[in-house]
Amino acid sequence: LITLLTDFGTADYFVPAVKGAILSVHPQATLIDITHEIPAHDIRSAAFTLNACFRDFPERTVHLAVVDPGVGSSRRPLVITSGGQILVGPDNGVFSFVFRQAAEFHVFHATEAQFMKPSGSETFHGRDLFAPLSALLDQGLDPAEVGPEVLDYNVFDIPDPQYDSATGMIIGEIIHIDRFGNCITNLTTKELDGFKIPAGTCLLIGTQRVTHFGGHFAQAAGGELLAYPGSAGYWEIGLWCRSAAALLDLRRGARVVLETGPAGRVDR
Amino acid sequence: LITLLTDFGTADYFVPAVKGAILSVHPQATLIDITHEIPAHDIRSAAFTLNACFRDFPERTVHLAVVDPGVGSSRRPLVITSGGQILVGPDNGVFSFVFRQAAEFHVFHATEAQFMKPSGSETFHGRDLFAPLSALLDQGLDPAEVGPEVLDYNVFDIPDPQYDSATGMIIGEIIHIDRFGNCITNLTTKELDGFKIPAGTCLLIGTQRVTHFGGHFAQAAGGELLAYPGSAGYWEIGLWCRSAAALLDLRRGARVVLETGPAGRVDR
Amino acid sequence: LITLLTDFGTADYFVPAVKGAILSVHPQATLIDITHEIPAHDIRSAAFTLNACFRDFPERTVHLAVVDPGVGSSRRPLVITSGGQILVGPDNGVFSFVFRQAAEFHVFHATEAQFMKPSGSETFHGRDLFAPLSALLDQGLDPAEVGPEVLDYNVFDIPDPQYDSATGMIIGEIIHIDRFGNCITNLTTKELDGFKIPAGTCLLIGTQRVTHFGGHFAQAAGGELLAYPGSAGYWEIGLWCRSAAALLDLRRGARVVLETGPAGRVDR
Repeated sequence: LITLLTDFGTADYFVPAVKGAILSVHPQATLIDITHEIPAHDIRSAAFTLNACFRDFPERTVHLAVVDPGVGSSRRPLVITSGGQILVGPDNGVFSFVFRQAAEFHVFHATEAQFMKPSGSETFHGRDLFAPLSALLDQGLDPAEVGPEVLDYNVFDIPDPQYDSATGMIIGEIIHIDRFGNCITNLTTKELDGFKIPAGTCLLIGTQRVTHFGGHFAQAAGGELLAYPGSAGYWEIGLWCRSAAALLDLRRGARVVLETGPAGRVDR
Repeated sequence: LITLLTDFGTADYFVPAVKGAILSVHPQATLIDITHEIPAHDIRSAAFTLNACFRDFPERTVHLAVVDPGVGSSRRPLVITSGGQILVGPDNGVFSFVFRQAAEFHVFHATEAQFMKPSGSETFHGRDLFAPLSALLDQGLDPAEVGPEVLDYNVFDIPDPQYDSATGMIIGEIIHIDRFGNCITNLTTKELDGFKIPAGTCLLIGTQRVTHFGGHFAQAAGGELLAYPGSAGYWEIGLWCRSAAALLDLRRGARVVLETGPAGRVDR
Repeated sequence: LITLLTDFGTADYFVPAVKGAILSVHPQATLIDITHEIPAHDIRSAAFTLNACFRDFPERTVHLAVVDPGVGSSRRPLVITSGGQILVGPDNGVFSFVFRQAAEFHVFHATEAQFMKPSGSETFHGRDLFAPLSALLDQGLDPAEVGPEVLDYNVFDIPDPQYDSATGMIIGEIIHIDRFGNCITNLTTKELDGFKIPAGTCLLIGTQRVTHFGGHFAQAAGGELLAYPGSAGYWEIGLWCRSAAALLDLRRGARVVLETGPAGRVDR
């Protein structure tokens, strides 16, 4: 089982060329698309999306992630093992969320040329380098055999919520916006436990104050903004049947402030 | 064989999370996308699309349909058997076209918790509830074992063409518009038999009069609107290489009038 | 293994209906999408995309290409063998690039009705005619058995670069624009050898002069237009992380002029 995540889109020949190259090495491979609609070259969006679902797959699934503005340059190809899963892709930060959330992981620099295909084109590493490598890993190749373990892999900075001791507020930010316009924050259950939310708690976002906290949208069918623990492990802000991001005119990176009323204090 | 129909889009992690959850239960499952581009929360469009193609699949295919504005609320999960096929999804009307066209069907309310996964998130029933249920059904679980048969399932109203005895006209409407801009009406061969169309028959739609009835677009290559029996079982109105919906500025629900000229009368 | 290339889009029931029809004949078939996002009825775009990737698949893959503005009319269904691959689709030019680049090929007109399904609808040959035919070919049906070999198949004109002996320039054109806005020209290594580019060589396109020739985008990270040998076998013009087509306001068919400076002359 091999999953694919790229920014190639589905209109061109790029994705099928990668799949054809995998199947040429390993005709029995099962291929599942994560998505090919990552905005072009948006490594942060790719990193979020990969991390949000790769653990849902069976053990020893190979996850190939190719979002690489540096294609053809000297980005090292990496193979990562974590929690029984295998991840493959360039050393450009696309695994940053995985590295941050995983309890344990190992990172290997794929240097063994015998596992890759001599490239006809310098512009298409997805097909010529990563596809055969993923096919062989799915066939049982030991990740430790692809090259040396490395510790100096690239990660991008994922902001931590900041506690402001003067006001008792926690300052977070929007790290992703999904297709429904739901805004995913970097606040987790560590900052706000869904089962004991102090009276008066609210989230300040843009010019709005979110005071509804709940598990599902039917609780916000009246049209109010709702904060809820999302399926990716973060608190999200959404609107029933509409786009919260559009209503609030929000982009990734927007600030979110968690504050508690006089009746309580958010437990840290 | 499991098909998937959702309004999740293909840009986010939702669809692969559902697929990963299915494959974690049933690694040998074959997964086929019907579509994930149903407009967000558009149950009518989902119902039309599902019904238009699910019979093309082999017997005992499991069809998972998740378009659910009420996610996390108390929508009952349903399992339906009809014509040798199995359908799975929420009780919100998404099976309305199936119920209307099927010669026979049975509807079961999935209540047996052992067939679903304890949900980590209340917002993602597609992954946590419907995915394992579909996987088990594909592995051979008897639909009758998932819970009690029910008769009070939800359906939305699908308009019937109306016969106006004063004028002899039949009043129908547009029930779907496809990606090419073809307009699918609710008129079937019952209202208009393609093999014997009385002289003078026409369809009135918007400000236009459709007088060409035929089997394929090459008959309307001159640029006229054409009515033809579509592959979903309804008469459609289309334009060769262009969008009839755009030309006519039509939306779903628009009125279509079938009238016959002096030379004939539409057979009822 | 069967690949599918259409202009059906992924929002409607067309693609799953074709897949269901294939799986009904051949339940073990592996189905891979090339793309369904070919612009409606754009045979040239389909022809380019098919040719750019079909050779990446294992031998004896069946490639089904359905982009057919003449659906329902008298377009002959073709089955083509080339380089160990099998291609299936209408006789409307969609195989033009294959015919041009292939060292050898045979074209058969599928006339044997037993390999196709009696059509319920004249408008959906993809499902009713091409799907069962592709399924049987994937199961081992000999392409020579589907009907007589023909030589009068349709091709559209693919422009050759023109050498202007007066000026020494080579006049080419843009034959495709991909999702990143990269502009694929009809210039190959025959016109310009990437390993020996004479000093002063440049590409004139729109109002711009491209003077950077290289193997990958990292060489053009400064924001200049770059010409590079693309993965489809043609020279392309691109911009790092941006759309060259948008910058240059280019469309397919735009003229590209290859000229060499005083220091050299392009080798023919």
